[in-house]
Amino acid sequence: MEPDHKIGEKVGLLPGSLVYVGENNNVPTHITAMQYNKMNFTERNIKEKDFFIREELRHFLHTKGKVGWVNVNGLSDIILMRSFGDSLRLDPLVLEDILNTQQRPKVEVFSDHIFFVLRMLSYDQEKEEVNVEQVSFILGNSFVISFQEREGDVFEMVRVRLRKKWGNLRFRGSDYLLYSLLDMIVDNYFLILECLSHKVAQMEERILSENLDDQNVPAIIQKNKKIILTVQQAVYPLREAINKLQRNESGLIDERTVKFLSDVQDHTLQVTDNIESFRDMNTGLQDVYLSTLSNNLNQVMKILTIISTIFIPLTFIVGLYGMNFKYMPEIGWKYGYLFSWGLMVTVVITLFVFFKRKRWL
Amino acid sequence: MEPDHKIGEKVGLLPGSLVYVGENNNVPTHITAMQYNKMNFTERNIKEKDFFIREELRHFLHTKGKVGWVNVNGLSDIILMRSFGDSLRLDPLVLEDILNTQQRPKVEVFSDHIFFVLRMLSYDQEKEEVNVEQVSFILGNSFVISFQEREGDVFEMVRVRLRKKWGNLRFRGSDYLLYSLLDMIVDNYFLILECLSHKVAQMEERILSENLDDQNVPAIIQKNKKIILTVQQAVYPLREAINKLQRNESGLIDERTVKFLSDVQDHTLQVTDNIESFRDMNTGLQDVYLSTLSNNLNQVMKILTIISTIFIPLTFIVGLYGMNFKYMPEIGWKYGYLFSWGLMVTVVITLFVFFKRKRWL
Amino acid sequence: MEPDHKIGEKVGLLPGSLVYVGENNNVPTHITAMQYNKMNFTERNIKEKDFFIREELRHFLHTKGKVGWVNVNGLSDIILMRSFGDSLRLDPLVLEDILNTQQRPKVEVFSDHIFFVLRMLSYDQEKEEVNVEQVSFILGNSFVISFQEREGDVFEMVRVRLRKKWGNLRFRGSDYLLYSLLDMIVDNYFLILECLSHKVAQMEERILSENLDDQNVPAIIQKNKKIILTVQQAVYPLREAINKLQRNESGLIDERTVKFLSDVQDHTLQVTDNIESFRDMNTGLQDVYLSTLSNNLNQVMKILTIISTIFIPLTFIVGLYGMNFKYMPEIGWKYGYLFSWGLMVTVVITLFVFFKRKRWL
Amino acid sequence: MEPDHKIGEKVGLLPGSLVYVGENNNVPTHITAMQYNKMNFTERNIKEKDFFIREELRHFLHTKGKVGWVNVNGLSDIILMRSFGDSLRLDPLVLEDILNTQQRPKVEVFSDHIFFVLRMLSYDQEKEEVNVEQVSFILGNSFVISFQEREGDVFEMVRVRLRKKWGNLRFRGSDYLLYSLLDMIVDNYFLILECLSHKVAQMEERILSENLDDQNVPAIIQKNKKIILTVQQAVYPLREAINKLQRNESGLIDERTVKFLSDVQDHTLQVTDNIESFRDMNTGLQDVYLSTLSNNLNQVMKILTIISTIFIPLTFIVGLYGMNFKYMPEIGWKYGYLFSWGLMVTVVITLFVFFKRKRWL
Amino acid sequence: MEPDHKIGEKVGLLPGSLVYVGENNNVPTHITAMQYNKMNFTERNIKEKDFFIREELRHFLHTKGKVGWVNVNGLSDIILMRSFGDSLRLDPLVLEDILNTQQRPKVEVFSDHIFFVLRMLSYDQEKEEVNVEQVSFILGNSFVISFQEREGDVFEMVRVRLRKKWGNLRFRGSDYLLYSLLDMIVDNYFLILECLSHKVAQMEERILSENLDDQNVPAIIQKNKKIILTVQQAVYPLREAINKLQRNESGLIDERTVKFLSDVQDHTLQVTDNIESFRDMNTGLQDVYLSTLSNNLNQVMKILTIISTIFIPLTFIVGLYGMNFKYMPEIGWKYGYLFSWGLMVTVVITLFVFFKRKRWL
Repeated sequence: MEPDHKIGEKVGLLPGSLVYVGENNNVPTHITAMQYNKMNFTERNIKEKDFFIREELRHFLHTKGKVGWVNVNGLSDIILMRSFGDSLRLDPLVLEDILNTQQRPKVEVFSDHIFFVLRMLSYDQEKEEVNVEQVSFILGNSFVISFQEREGDVFEMVRVRLRKKWGNLRFRGSDYLLYSLLDMIVDNYFLILECLSHKVAQMEERILSENLDDQNVPAIIQKNKKIILTVQQAVYPLREAINKLQRNESGLIDERTVKFLSDVQDHTLQVTDNIESFRDMNTGLQDVYLSTLSNNLNQVMKILTIISTIFIPLTFIVGLYGMNFKYMPEIGWKYGYLFSWGLMVTVVITLFVFFKRKRWL
Repeated sequence: MEPDHKIGEKVGLLPGSLVYVGENNNVPTHITAMQYNKMNFTERNIKEKDFFIREELRHFLHTKGKVGWVNVNGLSDIILMRSFGDSLRLDPLVLEDILNTQQRPKVEVFSDHIFFVLRMLSYDQEKEEVNVEQVSFILGNSFVISFQEREGDVFEMVRVRLRKKWGNLRFRGSDYLLYSLLDMIVDNYFLILECLSHKVAQMEERILSENLDDQNVPAIIQKNKKIILTVQQAVYPLREAINKLQRNESGLIDERTVKFLSDVQDHTLQVTDNIESFRDMNTGLQDVYLSTLSNNLNQVMKILTIISTIFIPLTFIVGLYGMNFKYMPEIGWKYGYLFSWGLMVTVVITLFVFFKRKRWL
Repeated sequence: MEPDHKIGEKVGLLPGSLVYVGENNNVPTHITAMQYNKMNFTERNIKEKDFFIREELRHFLHTKGKVGWVNVNGLSDIILMRSFGDSLRLDPLVLEDILNTQQRPKVEVFSDHIFFVLRMLSYDQEKEEVNVEQVSFILGNSFVISFQEREGDVFEMVRVRLRKKWGNLRFRGSDYLLYSLLDMIVDNYFLILECLSHKVAQMEERILSENLDDQNVPAIIQKNKKIILTVQQAVYPLREAINKLQRNESGLIDERTVKFLSDVQDHTLQVTDNIESFRDMNTGLQDVYLSTLSNNLNQVMKILTIISTIFIPLTFIVGLYGMNFKYMPEIGWKYGYLFSWGLMVTVVITLFVFFKRKRWL
Repeated sequence: MEPDHKIGEKVGLLPGSLVYVGENNNVPTHITAMQYNKMNFTERNIKEKDFFIREELRHFLHTKGKVGWVNVNGLSDIILMRSFGDSLRLDPLVLEDILNTQQRPKVEVFSDHIFFVLRMLSYDQEKEEVNVEQVSFILGNSFVISFQEREGDVFEMVRVRLRKKWGNLRFRGSDYLLYSLLDMIVDNYFLILECLSHKVAQMEERILSENLDDQNVPAIIQKNKKIILTVQQAVYPLREAINKLQRNESGLIDERTVKFLSDVQDHTLQVTDNIESFRDMNTGLQDVYLSTLSNNLNQVMKILTIISTIFIPLTFIVGLYGMNFKYMPEIGWKYGYLFSWGLMVTVVITLFVFFKRKRWL
Repeated sequence: MEPDHKIGEKVGLLPGSLVYVGENNNVPTHITAMQYNKMNFTERNIKEKDFFIREELRHFLHTKGKVGWVNVNGLSDIILMRSFGDSLRLDPLVLEDILNTQQRPKVEVFSDHIFFVLRMLSYDQEKEEVNVEQVSFILGNSFVISFQEREGDVFEMVRVRLRKKWGNLRFRGSDYLLYSLLDMIVDNYFLILECLSHKVAQMEERILSENLDDQNVPAIIQKNKKIILTVQQAVYPLREAINKLQRNESGLIDERTVKFLSDVQDHTLQVTDNIESFRDMNTGLQDVYLSTLSNNLNQVMKILTIISTIFIPLTFIVGLYGMNFKYMPEIGWKYGYLFSWGLMVTVVITLFVFFKRKRWL
C-alpha cells in the first residue's frame, strides 16, 4: 500500500536506470533452471551464475523440443540483472520494471516475448499483515523466466508436477507453464480471503457480544482495511492484464491455453467479488462498533442517573433534619425519625414507578 | 459471502482436479432422469448410478424426438462425477467448476452444449440466514443436466408440469426446459426479498417506536447486510450470464425461448432494483438507530441534569444550616426553619422558570 | 419499494400464468372507449364488457381513419383479461406483465404493436406516502389501450382536450395520444417533487431552529428516503424505456412525435436531477440533525457541569463545619460563620473566572 | 434546486402551452437590439415591442452582412412571447422551454437555427444564496436572440466590446457572439467558486480553532451544500450541451469558433473539478465539526468527573464526622479535626496521582 | 484546490486576453536556452530577453540537426509573453492558457507543435502543504519550450544529463526531451506520496495509541485530505492528456518515444492507485479517531459513575445519622458507630460485586 520508501532514491535517474527499490537489498541472487519435455526432465541449481547467464542461457532457453524454466530469487545484484537483460535482449524499461518492485500488475507484449508482472501475496500470521512480493515473468516461445524478490514462493506444487510428470504440464508448451504459475498465485489470494473472512467473523462476533474491552477494535478494523486495499491493488489491475494476455496476437499463447486463462480470470473476478463484500462487512463493523459504544454509554448513563436520582432527594431529606435550627417542630416529634423514613420510602417508591414507566428498570 | 473454508484445500492442485469444496461432503449422490415429448413421459429414479452413467446416459440423452432431463443431487462422489464428465465429454474445467461450488454465476458456450452455473437461494427462517446452493446446468440439443449440492430444490412445479402436461413445457425443446428451471430459481429470489422487506419494515417500526431494549439492533442490521450482499453476489453476475445466453449463436436456444429469457432478465433487474432499495433502507436504519440512541442519551441526561440542578442547591442550603458555628444568627431565629424553607422554595421556582425557558420541561 | 407481498403466490406458476398480484383485488373492472378523428368524437362507457371485448373490440380498434382509446380500470377479473389478450392476440408474457403489477418500466416492441409499462405516482397527503400504480399501454397503428389498477388517474386533461378539440390531439395519430398520456404521468412526478421539496425545506428549517421535541425527525427523514427511492425506481428505468421507444423502427411512432418524446425525456432527466438533489439534501438533514443533537447534549452537559462544579465545593465546606469534633477552632470563632461565607464566595468567584476563560458563560 | 412551485400549475396543459413558471411574474418585458459589422454598429432600445416583433424582427435579423443581437429581459408577457415564436417560426416546444425556466442545460439543433438553454448564476452576498436565472439563446445564421428572466446580466463586457470595437467580436459572425456570451456565463461560475472557497476556508478555520459558539455551523454547511448542488446542476449537463454544440453539423458554427468552444469546455471541466473538491471539503467540515463537538464533550465531562471525583469522598468524610452517635471515638480526640484534614489531604493527593497517570491533568 | 483569487479579475476580458493570474506577480522573468546534438552542447543565460525573443528565437529553435530547449521562469511580464507568442506564432488561446495558471492538465495538438500543460507539485515541509506550479510545454520538431511560474524546478537532473552526456538524451530528438521532463515531474509526485504515507502512518499510530491530546487530529486529517485532492486534480486529467499525446498523429512524437510515454502513463496509474488508498486510509483515520473519542468518553463516564455510585449511598448514610431528631434509637446504641461502618462496608462490597459483574472493574 505504501510506496516503497526507497522509491525516492530513483527520482531523477536516467530512464532505464537499474535500481532495486525493494526491501531485501542484500538477498543473494539464487538461480534454478529446469528443462523438460514429455520424455526428459532436468533440474539445475546454478552456481556459476555469471557464466551461466552470459554463455549458457540463450542456448538453454532455445533448446528444440524442450521447455525451459529459469527462476531467479533475489534482485539486488544489479550487474547480474544487467547481464540477464543483455543476454535476453530485453528492453531496458522491462528490466527497470523487474527491479522497480512497485509496479502495477501489467502485461507487455513484444515481438518474441511477453512480459508479465504481478503481485504474490502471502499472509503473515504473526504480524497479521499481508506480505507483498513482486513476481515478473518473461514468456518466450519455449521458455518462462520468473523473477522473485526473495526465497519462498507458491510454486512448489508446479515443481512437483514437473518432476513427477503429474497432470499434463510436461505435455504442453511454455504458455501452459506460465498459466500454471499464474494459477498458483491467484489461488493463493483465496488463502488471504480465508484469513480475512476468519478475522472479520471473529471481530463481528466479539463486537456483537459487547465484549469490547480487551481488544483495540478500531485498530483491527483499520488493519483489515489495509489488507483489503492491498488485495484490491493486486487484483484489480490483474483483470485487465489477463485480458490483454488472452487477446494478444503474438502467437505465444496457444488457443487451448486461452481457455485456462479464462479460468484464472474467473478466479480473479471471484476474488474481486469477495473482497468487495469484505470491504462492506468491515465498514459495517465500524458502524456496529460505534453503535455498541453509544449503547454502552447509554447504559452507563442510565445507571448513574437512576442512582443519583434516587439518592439525591434522600440526601436532601437527611440534610434537612440535620439542620441546627432551634425551633424545628419535626425534630422534637416522638416519631419524627420514623416520619423521615416514611418520607424517604415514599420518594424512593415514587421514583421507582417513574423509572418503570420510562422502561429503564 | 465467505469463501468456503475448504477452498484452501484446492490450492496447488492440478487444474481440472476434482475436489468437491462444498459443506455437504457426505451427501449420497442421487440421480433422477426424465424423458418426454408431446406424447410420452417417463421418469426414473436411477439406482445403479455407475452403470447408468457409463452405459445408458449417452443413449438416453440423444433419443430422437425426446427431451431428457437428468438431475443430480449431491456432488461429493468424485468417481461418479468423473465418469459423468467422461460420458458427456465435458471439458475438465467445466467438471471442476461444477464441483467447486464457489463459482460466480456464468455461462460458457461450447460447440454442442452450454454450461450455466448460478446460485439457488433459500431463506432459513430459523437461523435467519440465506442458504446458498450452487446449481449447474448443461444444456444440449435434446437434454438438460442439472447438478445440485443437496436434496431439496425449487423445481417441484416444473416436475409437476411435466408429469401433468400443464403449460407448453412438453411441447417445447430442452432450451425451454432450461428457461423454466432458471425462471424458478429467479422467482425464488423474490421470496428472499419478501422476507427481507418484512424484516426491514419490522426493524424500522421498532426503532422508530424507540422500543430498543430487547433486541440487538446492530446485529440485525449487520445480518440484513449480509443477506443483501449474498443476494447481490448471486444476482449481479447473473445479468451478464443471461445476456450471454440470449446472444449466443450455438443454435441451442430457440428464437421463441429468447423472448422468455428476456422475461427472466427483467425479473433479475427487478430483483436488482429492490435489493438496492433494501440496501439503502438498511443503511438508513443504522442512521436512524444512532439518532435514536443519541436522542435517548439526551433525554437521560436532561432528567439527570434537572434533578441534580434542583437538589444540589437545596442540599447546600440544608448543609449550611447544619453547620455547628456557635455564632450563627439564623439558627436562633424563631422562624429560621420557615425562612430556610422559603429560601428553598424560591430556588426551586427559579430553576423551574429557567428550565421552562430552555423548553426542557 | 417493497415487492408486493402477493408476489410470493406467483412463484412456481406457469410462465404466462395470469395472476393479479396488486392490492386491489376486488376492484370491479371498468372499461371506457373513445374514438375520434378531426371531425367526430364518440365516448362510450362499456357495460357489457364481455361482449364488447369478444365481439366489438377488434372492429372498434381498427376503424379506418379513426383513433381509438380503450381504458381499463381494475385488473382483478382474470377471465376478462384473458379474453382481452385473445382478442388483441397479445403475447401471453405481455398479458402476464400487465397483471403482475411489480414491473420495472419498460418497452417491448412487437411487429404490429408496442407494449409500454410504467408507474403512475400520486402523493397521499394524509398518509404522507406516495401511491404507486402500474399503468400499461398497448399502442397499435390506430389505437391505444391503457390498463390501470384502480379508478382515478391523471388523464382527465387529455379527455377534456379530446372532447373539446383543444390542441392538436384530435388531428394526430395514436402515437401522439400515447405521448400525451405519458406526458401527463411524467408531469405528475413534478407534483411529488414539490411535496418533497416542501417537506425537506420545512424539516430543515425546524432542525436548524433546534425545535426538535415535537417531531420524530429520524422517522420523517426515513420516510422521505422511501419516497425518493420510490420515485427513483419509477424514473430511472423510464429513461431507457423512452429511449427505446424513440429509436424503435416499427413505424408506429411518427417522426413528429419523436420530438415530443424527447421533451418527455428531458422532463425525466429533470426529475432525475431533482431527485438526486433531494437525496443529497435529505442525507444532509440526517447529518445536521445528529450535529444538533450532539450540540444540545453539549449544552446540557455544560449546564450540569457548571452547577455541579459550583455547588460541590460549597457543599463540602458546609459539611466541614457541620462536623462534631470537640476541638474545632473555627467553630468557636466569633466571625466563624462570616468566615465560612467568605470562603464560599471566594470559591464561587474563582470558578466564575475559570468558566469565563473556558468561554462557557 | 427546488422545482419552482408554480410548475404544478403547468401539469395537465397542452404540450407547447405557454406558461411562464418563474418567480418574477410581473417583470415588464424589455427588449434591446444591436446590429453590427466591421464598419457599423447600431443599438436600439425597443419601445413598441409588439410592432417590432411582428413587423421588423425578421428583416432585422436577416440583414445581409450584419450580425443582429436581440436581447429579451422578462418573460411573463405570454402574448409577446407567442408573437416572437410566430415571427421566428420556432417550434412550440422550444418556446415552451424558454418560458418553463426549470430546463436542464441543453442544445437542440434545427435546420436553420440552434436552441441553447443554460443557467446564469450569481451570488447574492446578503442572503448568502446563489441566484439562478435561465438564459436561452437562439443562434441563427446572422443573429443571436437571448432570453433572460429579469434585468441584470453578465453580458455588459460584451456590449462594451461591441460598442468600442474591442477584440475581434465585430469581425466575426453570430456564432462568435454566442461563444462570447457563453464564455461570460461560464466565467461567472468562477466567481461563485471564489465565494464558496472563501466561505469554506473561513468556516474551516473557525471550526478548527474550536470557536463554535456564535455560529450555526450545521446550517452553514448545509447552505454550502445547496450552493454546490446548484452549481453542479448548472454545470454537469452543460458539458454534454457544449459537446453537442461543437459536434453539430448545421454549418452554423464556424470551424474557428469550435476551438473557442473547446476553451469554454475546458473551463466547464475546471469548474467541475473545483466543485467536486468543494463538495469533499464541505463534507469533511461536517466530520471535523462532529469530532470537535465530541472532543468538547469529552473535555467537559473530564472536568466534571475530576471535580466530582475529588469532592465526593471529601464530602463523605465531613459527613462522617457530622454524625451524632454518642459513642464515636474520633470526635473526642484532641487532634480529631486535624486527623480528618489529614485524611482529606491524603485522598486529594491520591486522586491527583491517579489523574496524572490517566493524563487528565 | 482553491481557484486562484485573482481569477475573478479575468472575468469579462476578451478571449485571448493576457492576464497572469498566479501568485508571484512580481517574479522577474528569467530565460535560459540550451542547444545540443550528439557532438555539441551550448547553454546560455539570456540577458537581453526582448532582443532574444524577437530576433534570435526562431533561428535558435530551427537550427538544423540540433535540439533547442528554452526555459522561461516567471510569467508576469505580459509584454515579453506576448512577443513570445508572436515569435512562435502561437494561438492566442494557448498563450492565455500559459498565463492563466489554473488550467487542468491537457494536451492540444497543432499542425507543427504540441501544447502540453500540467502541474508540478512539491511538498513544503514547513507549512505541511503541497506547492502547485503550472508548467507548460511547447513541443516543436526540433525544440521544447517550457514555461514555469517561478524559479526552482525538478529538471536539474535533465540539465546535468544534457551537460554530461549521460544516457541517450543527447542522441534523441525533442520528443525525448519532453518525455524526460514529464518523467521528472511525475516521478516527483511519488515524493509527495511518500510524505503523505509518512504522515498518515504517524497519525494512525498516534490515534491508535490514544495519545490524542497534543495534536489537533481533525485539522491534520483535513489537511491530508486537501493534499490528496491536490494530487488527484493534478494526476487524473494527466492520464487522458498523456493518452492523447501517445495517440496524436502529428508526427512530432517518435515511435520509440511512445514506449517511454507508456512508462510515464504506468507511473501515473501507480500514483492514482496509491492516492486512492491514501484517501481511504485517511477517511478511515477519521472513523478511528471518532471511535477513540467515544471510547474515551465511555471510560470517563464509567469512572465518574463508579465513584458517584459508591459514595452517594455512603453520603446518604452518614447524613442519616447526622440528623438531629430527639428520638433516634441508633444514635444512643453503644456500637452505633460501628454499626454504621458495617452498613457502609456492606454497601461498598455489594456495589463492587455489581460492577464486577458488569465488567467495569
